[in-house]
Amino acid sequence: MKDDFVPDVVISRLPLYLQELNHLAKEGLHTVSSKVMAARLGTTAAQIRKDLSYFGGFGKQGSGYQIYDLIEQLQKILNMDHVWQVVVVGAGDLGRALTHYQGFASQGIEIVALFDVDPKLVGTQVGSIAVRHVDEMEDELKNLGIKIAILTVPGGVAQEVAEKLVKFGVRAILNYAPVSLMLPEEVHVQHIDPVPHIQKMMYYL
Amino acid sequence: MKDDFVPDVVISRLPLYLQELNHLAKEGLHTVSSKVMAARLGTTAAQIRKDLSYFGGFGKQGSGYQIYDLIEQLQKILNMDHVWQVVVVGAGDLGRALTHYQGFASQGIEIVALFDVDPKLVGTQVGSIAVRHVDEMEDELKNLGIKIAILTVPGGVAQEVAEKLVKFGVRAILNYAPVSLMLPEEVHVQHIDPVPHIQKMMYYL
Repeated sequence: MKDDFVPDVVISRLPLYLQELNHLAKEGLHTVSSKVMAARLGTTAAQIRKDLSYFGGFGKQGSGYQIYDLIEQLQKILNMDHVWQVVVVGAGDLGRALTHYQGFASQGIEIVALFDVDPKLVGTQVGSIAVRHVDEMEDELKNLGIKIAILTVPGGVAQEVAEKLVKFGVRAILNYAPVSLMLPEEVHVQHIDPVPHIQKMMYYL
Repeated sequence: MKDDFVPDVVISRLPLYLQELNHLAKEGLHTVSSKVMAARLGTTAAQIRKDLSYFGGFGKQGSGYQIYDLIEQLQKILNMDHVWQVVVVGAGDLGRALTHYQGFASQGIEIVALFDVDPKLVGTQVGSIAVRHVDEMEDELKNLGIKIAILTVPGGVAQEVAEKLVKFGVRAILNYAPVSLMLPEEVHVQHIDPVPHIQKMMYYL
């Protein structure tokens, strides 16, 4: 099923296809054409067909994709066959917002711990999760075998905290801190920053 | 300077180039090659040269780009020659985090108002900004001529609030709500959702 030569940009688009297919399924549809998918995602039918062709032939000429079947295939490709436990480091407003974000559970993502250094935050609750001191991070990450972390600490300490996470076994970091992280190549980093998104829109205004 | 036929995906990359150039300038550099830029951004030198060529010839063969000059040009292209006033709608954890986000000011983005409907939130302060009731949104947006809004309301009301924003003159929405917005074509929407970013990394784990 997996092909090491799938371009990274194709992998980036698979979660968006999955998201749209989930919307379509919720609307009660069972099949969808690449054309309709493309219109809803602001891309082209050719792009969707080409992206999916890396993983074998989904859909039949003329009859479109079986939505539930394609959802299942994409979930397999994206390793969503089990729940991924994720920790959040940084219990400020953003860390707390992400800890009780409603969109994770249905996508197989479970926030299991939230860490901070601030004595005013350590011990407070965010929903069912208690904020714990970063000193407890090593044990927790190693015990649970955590591979994915969300980083919402201030920019000045992000690199240092990220290096600790990697030392404790984390291999994927969703970085909300406003800095670029320098980490070993085998660690996957995705940077979420509102600024480039707003600047892109400025261009068109 | 501007070309209507620049692909949207090229525009998406300009803010990332600008960000990296700002980092390089902070590190004290004055020139940079497309090769070094590419290595730092995880892309190719050819991609960067091709993207920038849409806007005319920057940089000289062999001597690279003048960093300060290229920053200035990119800022012009992205309409950063003046400060853009932006409102945040939704004063939950995420809305508050964005309202006091430190990365906006240096990029010409000023958060000028924060709105919510929750009587427990209206009247509270987030830094120097007071949370105001959404009923005051129309006057504020029209008076200030606001074109850009950040939406951090619950998914169930996002569409309705977005339509109001558009009615009051907003033309670009950064959407953090976990739903797709259906808006007139002339309104620019960027969707920020942590789920696809995490799912993309799952593929590689």
